[in-house]
Amino acid sequence: MQPAFTDIVSAAARLDGFAVRTPVIESPRLNALAGGRVLVKAECLQRTGSFKFRGAWNLISQLDPAATPGGVVAYSSGNHAQGVAAAAQLKGLRALIVMPADTPRIKQDNTRALGAEIVTYDRATQSREEIAAHHMRARGAVLVPPFEHPDIIAGQGTAGLELADQAAAMGVRLDDVLVCCSGGGLTAGIALAMAERSPGTVVHTVEPEGFDDYARSLAAGSITRNPSPTGSICDALLSPSPGEMTFAINRRLLGPGLVVSDAEAAAAVRFAFENLKLVLEPGGAVALAAVLSGKIAVRGRAVGVIASGGNCDAELYTRILTSAI
Amino acid sequence: MQPAFTDIVSAAARLDGFAVRTPVIESPRLNALAGGRVLVKAECLQRTGSFKFRGAWNLISQLDPAATPGGVVAYSSGNHAQGVAAAAQLKGLRALIVMPADTPRIKQDNTRALGAEIVTYDRATQSREEIAAHHMRARGAVLVPPFEHPDIIAGQGTAGLELADQAAAMGVRLDDVLVCCSGGGLTAGIALAMAERSPGTVVHTVEPEGFDDYARSLAAGSITRNPSPTGSICDALLSPSPGEMTFAINRRLLGPGLVVSDAEAAAAVRFAFENLKLVLEPGGAVALAAVLSGKIAVRGRAVGVIASGGNCDAELYTRILTSAI
Repeated sequence: MQPAFTDIVSAAARLDGFAVRTPVIESPRLNALAGGRVLVKAECLQRTGSFKFRGAWNLISQLDPAATPGGVVAYSSGNHAQGVAAAAQLKGLRALIVMPADTPRIKQDNTRALGAEIVTYDRATQSREEIAAHHMRARGAVLVPPFEHPDIIAGQGTAGLELADQAAAMGVRLDDVLVCCSGGGLTAGIALAMAERSPGTVVHTVEPEGFDDYARSLAAGSITRNPSPTGSICDALLSPSPGEMTFAINRRLLGPGLVVSDAEAAAAVRFAFENLKLVLEPGGAVALAAVLSGKIAVRGRAVGVIASGGNCDAELYTRILTSAI
Repeated sequence: MQPAFTDIVSAAARLDGFAVRTPVIESPRLNALAGGRVLVKAECLQRTGSFKFRGAWNLISQLDPAATPGGVVAYSSGNHAQGVAAAAQLKGLRALIVMPADTPRIKQDNTRALGAEIVTYDRATQSREEIAAHHMRARGAVLVPPFEHPDIIAGQGTAGLELADQAAAMGVRLDDVLVCCSGGGLTAGIALAMAERSPGTVVHTVEPEGFDDYARSLAAGSITRNPSPTGSICDALLSPSPGEMTFAINRRLLGPGLVVSDAEAAAAVRFAFENLKLVLEPGGAVALAAVLSGKIAVRGRAVGVIASGGNCDAELYTRILTSAI
């Protein structure tokens, strides 16, 4: 069952005191470059370094630990893993996370540091869903899916609720909101929140080249898949296809999807370092990259940009800063 | 004449709509490590990437451009330069900045990008005050000193006013506030704000080893100088001695000064990258370093940390991330 706007309001109440109400940052230099107002919602400053804690906590905080001795299981490329691990730890639940073997080390280390157990798999040859299902049955655990769940979508939507309120408090009417998109849960949640709190604001997905399954699915009107499971520095945005639930929401509410190259994502990471003083991972910088590379008209307009995460290995970050990417 | 608390309130009104009300960030991991609550005031997210815009705007916004055809002159190791350049540009005034030749390139580039003219000097052999005075006379410009001025101190104090209000809104009574310290203007402003808005909170300077003129001056009860003008990665904190006006305020209001090594400052920069997702320069990270290296008791207590700036060259940042420092 699809979540409704009221589910986002309920999620916001559950998150109060646990998640960070992340700041909206406006940079005079970015505004000058873009010729309009760009409001950056800094979700990299969220607990665990990405928005993923929102959805995970919204679902997990409703579980009864006594009735869930097997804890929770999740599959994730790294940010959902940390969100689930942190939420489970807060709630006193065991957590097992199925992760691609090529997940950035910072995401693996942080997930373990939050008390979760990790099982790795090969992104190219194995199915994470099957591995997770196996462990779920074996320990009688509850699955916390990365996006296909009304509580997850509603939890991520709280970022949109906050952005709508923060923009209004700044006296800004947002023309567009750009959302880094993988499975579409964050986008769907934000689109639901905006439709109610900021009607007229157009929400767009932003994806890396070669992984623009959402843009193509929206254009085609039906779910299409990416040709390859790997091959972008945006490791957080490699979901093979839109979720059915997220797509049902997004096809109804979104504007056209945007696409940026890895080089444009890397340039946005550098821009955030130099000008915003925010650490972004490449996948968390694609919405900013869409603005900087002119993929959407900003002149004389106001655009919200979700900076969705900042969990980047020092080695990759260093290569990006030195313009090796 | 020393500034009073009411001058900080007036400064806050002048800054409204021009400066960023920077967020206070709390990290569950940092709290767990410290065993208490650590509230990080993210001044790296301020306009121009450091708190310096506050004081510069408070002074410069009061100038009449028609009566100031010569514009403003300032000497600065880089962050004050950018603050002055941005404020002068907003006000439509010319700006000339006297900068050490070894100033990080990002600070020189940003200052130029904000429309200021730059004159460099040798930190070891030349007097920046004399060079600035020469240009001031030559063009009939107004000097914007880095800390020895009531408007500058009051402007920087708005960071303390905000922190006191933000902590109160979070239900936190701060036991201590740690401030990255060079000439003492930010510290003096914050100490004045705290004395009024958060009485009982003890404010401490934090300085790099070898440049602890403030800690030694406070202990001695009189102004003492650093033995060397250069030799720390904390390029923003190399003022040779406390200012007379800042010291008169600080000796009355502060607790003991704290000192951290360059290695501890670098470790704090890495911690902010990995856990806070904030870009800090070494000099902007020394207060955080004091907490991480146990220079102050945090267990069971609440401590405010000013993360004062994030203008770090990519080359130095890369060396820090790869643990080369």
